[in-house]
Amino acid sequence: MIEVRTLPPGFEVPSTRALADDLAIARNTVVATYDQLVTEGFLLNRRGARSIVIVLPAMPVPSQHSAAQPPRRALSARGETMTHQPIHHGTPGRFAFHPGMPDARSFPYREWSKLVTKRAGAGGESLFGTYHVVGLPALREAIADYLRAARGVHCNAEQVVVTTGAQATFDLLARLLLDPGDSVWMEEPGYFGAQSAFVAAGARLVELPVGVNGWQLTPAPSPPPRLFFVTPACQHPLGVTMPMEQRLRLLEIADQCDAWVIEDDFDGEYRFQGRPIPALQGMDRSERVIYVGTFAKILFPALRLGFMVLPQALHERMPQALSTTGQFAPLLLQAAVADFINQGLMTRHLKRMRRVYAARRRQFHELCESNLSGRLTLLSGDAGIQVVGILHESLDDNAIAATAEQLGINVSPLSKYYRHGRPTHGLVLGYAACDDNQMRHGIQRLGEAIAANWH
Amino acid sequence: MIEVRTLPPGFEVPSTRALADDLAIARNTVVATYDQLVTEGFLLNRRGARSIVIVLPAMPVPSQHSAAQPPRRALSARGETMTHQPIHHGTPGRFAFHPGMPDARSFPYREWSKLVTKRAGAGGESLFGTYHVVGLPALREAIADYLRAARGVHCNAEQVVVTTGAQATFDLLARLLLDPGDSVWMEEPGYFGAQSAFVAAGARLVELPVGVNGWQLTPAPSPPPRLFFVTPACQHPLGVTMPMEQRLRLLEIADQCDAWVIEDDFDGEYRFQGRPIPALQGMDRSERVIYVGTFAKILFPALRLGFMVLPQALHERMPQALSTTGQFAPLLLQAAVADFINQGLMTRHLKRMRRVYAARRRQFHELCESNLSGRLTLLSGDAGIQVVGILHESLDDNAIAATAEQLGINVSPLSKYYRHGRPTHGLVLGYAACDDNQMRHGIQRLGEAIAANWH
Repeated sequence: MIEVRTLPPGFEVPSTRALADDLAIARNTVVATYDQLVTEGFLLNRRGARSIVIVLPAMPVPSQHSAAQPPRRALSARGETMTHQPIHHGTPGRFAFHPGMPDARSFPYREWSKLVTKRAGAGGESLFGTYHVVGLPALREAIADYLRAARGVHCNAEQVVVTTGAQATFDLLARLLLDPGDSVWMEEPGYFGAQSAFVAAGARLVELPVGVNGWQLTPAPSPPPRLFFVTPACQHPLGVTMPMEQRLRLLEIADQCDAWVIEDDFDGEYRFQGRPIPALQGMDRSERVIYVGTFAKILFPALRLGFMVLPQALHERMPQALSTTGQFAPLLLQAAVADFINQGLMTRHLKRMRRVYAARRRQFHELCESNLSGRLTLLSGDAGIQVVGILHESLDDNAIAATAEQLGINVSPLSKYYRHGRPTHGLVLGYAACDDNQMRHGIQRLGEAIAANWH
Repeated sequence: MIEVRTLPPGFEVPSTRALADDLAIARNTVVATYDQLVTEGFLLNRRGARSIVIVLPAMPVPSQHSAAQPPRRALSARGETMTHQPIHHGTPGRFAFHPGMPDARSFPYREWSKLVTKRAGAGGESLFGTYHVVGLPALREAIADYLRAARGVHCNAEQVVVTTGAQATFDLLARLLLDPGDSVWMEEPGYFGAQSAFVAAGARLVELPVGVNGWQLTPAPSPPPRLFFVTPACQHPLGVTMPMEQRLRLLEIADQCDAWVIEDDFDGEYRFQGRPIPALQGMDRSERVIYVGTFAKILFPALRLGFMVLPQALHERMPQALSTTGQFAPLLLQAAVADFINQGLMTRHLKRMRRVYAARRRQFHELCESNLSGRLTLLSGDAGIQVVGILHESLDDNAIAATAEQLGINVSPLSKYYRHGRPTHGLVLGYAACDDNQMRHGIQRLGEAIAANWH
């Protein structure tokens, strides 16, 4: 009644006793209601007199024909850029052939659940407050141990920062290291998520071409970029591994350019021939390589936990940086993952999955060979839980991905990984989450999608 | 030996048989080692001949006197800004008087742990992949139900986005809505975390003065800011509630300025007199209010889960935005919180904590009155799990906070919440996590810290 001015400004409300009698309710209810109206600013208390209705500006009345509108310019220019980047999250249940998706059915839920339960029920303050902005000390130790032993990373726990995933790490680093207009030497084709993070930060991408023979490092970029981005263990998306000669050359150019190097250790754990190749970070003598990793493929994507290893000049600045962006991770999950690593469960799981994925990879190659020969040619890279198939030159990968989507098949067009034009058309195919049936069925559907676009 | 050129480029390695004999190891070990060296790019395979050492650039040799240095300019200008913002995370075990810290001992760990266990062990794909970038549908529904019933927010589940906490939400919104140079009408004193997010995004803060009588809304800001930031339920840090007249006026000015309004519903749940005041968002007729909330105080800070309610013009853009920044939350915790809400546990916990905190608040006021009278005067705001004490004018809050820190007492100086000079000196004091003993001991120590700075 105040809102719609049935009770005008200055109106003296009835006494609490009179209103209680009128409405046949308890007087305390009326007292509490008047107090609430005073607190919310509808009534004005007057000492020794009854409260009156406050003078309020005209109330915006809900209306179908309201003149008021949301802001004419919804997003900032930066916001427009941020929301016009390519994304790929797939659809639940579509295992074939979601790039980068590990196998949900092979995860040791029983052991994981035990560890989570223990930590979730422990109570107390240790996992309650937000003291550990750069990560739970136990997890930072566990990650440092793992990276030294398994990935040849030179680090101590102090340099390790736990993050909310690789994408959040790229987003944070892009902002910390780049100003608008700065340039990044970025793989082409390259991981579109990282590209998006750099572009969203206002950076300019300079093309670093990659092909089946590796990284084309000459001519060196000019003017010198502020940052290099590479995936040496398993190029994203091509799956090739950076040879020693190119690693040395890259570090040399980084020194000349005085640039930071982000090493995204993409699928470094999933190598099916020989041992994993040690990280580039371990060869860096000038403290310019920032190592980035994630638990998304080793454990599972929805865990939203990643990590980075920072040189001295950067890691001291991280508590402030993370505090400002809020990009730090829940402690319960960090504690459970630390236990999972320390009890040897992660190493065991990884070992098992290398075997499972190696078999699936072989089968995938065989099925593609016998069903899609001449139309789709798989690259032979021997790392990663996804593979790239190059399409026959008459085929358009976007058209095929769209048809495949309609047939319930989830593939990523290779041209999406190019930002400088002249894309090679192909498909990025995740084989790891498919069992035998799903793989056969998926390849059949993929064949149909290709046939539908074959002219 | 290759790295240090003991084996020069072109050197032909011994046959696998000869080396195996020499070293008295299995020939397969030598074969695997040669393969690995080929993969890593140290050896070149030759058909029908033994492998040779590849020509490599000079290897950077680890050295104490290495000429190579990390990049001369560590951070971008933006990075420097991001890492020079005030932060406050406190120290484990220092309950007295950490602002904004809820009580760890009162959390229902047993029920929580049961829910987490059930979800962690369930397996399958539903909480495994990253399909739900804007939040698990079950949690978005639960949040929408809660906000409609408890906070007077007008929304459906589609408008709700789950975030990784309030700070990450401010960080994301700052970038989506503001370009460098855009201005924000920001409370002074105001929450330094939100201020930091805006400043990090390149925005300019325009002062919106707040005092014990509320928000000083005249003169309206000119030129019109692009964004307003307010904490109407419980001003951060002063604890005052925005009266109806000022709410209406604020929305009117926002319409005139064509600005977005971020409503940070800071401690909206913790009101100890009467019922919670409905959110400003519920009065917005022009779809310009963005409601931001967090589970950090209702449940616990290390959970790292928050939420926002977006107008139509924005929520459709969020999957792309979140995908680019990687700021989306782990599904396991989202599922457990959805269960926690849907089973009525959150409402029960909140009801209980309102009682507990109301008692602690009364006790804290009494103890301050009897021990620190004349030196520290608490504001009387009746909401929030922290209170502001204004210091005697001869006292410096930064000096007292520093002394208190040495005495094991965690307080936040009020001047930290001012960005435009002329701060009122005071202390922001969290009372909620202290039991009786800790509170008495803390106030005694705080008295010592004040005495040490009393001249």
